[in-house]
Amino acid sequence: MDMDANGRGPIWDMIAGRVPPAPAAATLGWELIAVDPEQGTLEVAFEAGERFTNPMGVVQGGFLAAMLDDTMGPALVATLPAGQFAPTLDLHVQFLRPAGPGRFVGRGRVVRRGREVCFLAGELTGPDGRLVATATATAIIRTVRP
Amino acid sequence: MDMDANGRGPIWDMIAGRVPPAPAAATLGWELIAVDPEQGTLEVAFEAGERFTNPMGVVQGGFLAAMLDDTMGPALVATLPAGQFAPTLDLHVQFLRPAGPGRFVGRGRVVRRGREVCFLAGELTGPDGRLVATATATAIIRTVRP
Repeated sequence: MDMDANGRGPIWDMIAGRVPPAPAAATLGWELIAVDPEQGTLEVAFEAGERFTNPMGVVQGGFLAAMLDDTMGPALVATLPAGQFAPTLDLHVQFLRPAGPGRFVGRGRVVRRGREVCFLAGELTGPDGRLVATATATAIIRTVRP
Repeated sequence: MDMDANGRGPIWDMIAGRVPPAPAAATLGWELIAVDPEQGTLEVAFEAGERFTNPMGVVQGGFLAAMLDDTMGPALVATLPAGQFAPTLDLHVQFLRPAGPGRFVGRGRVVRRGREVCFLAGELTGPDGRLVATATATAIIRTVRP
């Protein structure tokens, strides 16, 4: 595991236990596996319960999209100083195969980190370890007004 | 409200109260407002609770994506006979502005319904009635194996 609990910013506060996970992250069962701000990469596990399933009994695609958003976003946020955040502007997800509920793993990376505009990519594997969805996103760095 | 509870298929079973909403729909507070299979349109309300919010206190983009997926998918499913379903292959969401928790309304439409491949579009308004996100999706019609 590659992380530095002495970092600053929302992700680092969460890693260090200074703040609880955001509600959306908690709802998705977000659990950090690894983060490397130098490389711009982050790996996170999710727990997809029955409550995320569609009428076919598989996890609804929108919740896979939510997991991917909560993988790519934090990969970028981990590179930011305290006082900055990075809302997602645009999210594109391809659903490769269906997957039932269970533990998912997301891997996100910052493809290009501009001064403001950032390009992100991510992938999500399902409970059996197979790739279920891939995504790209565009985000913009903003400063939190005091 | 334009709907026909004598229709057949998953959406119609739900409208007629023959089956409960899918777990993912229930999690999102999915509530049908109107559906018109002839026009390929559907309107649905969602209840986004605090549990969908990110560290900035607004609804995490991924959950907006989940709502849009659960707007466009049912717009298509409403046009299908019993025994068919239509998994989403591809989802693209643009996040126009942030929105806090509350009632959201999704409007979805079938842009082109092929024999197999279908193109969908949707938009989502937030608690203040302003447009918060738009989306397009590609889905494919499949027959449920008996």
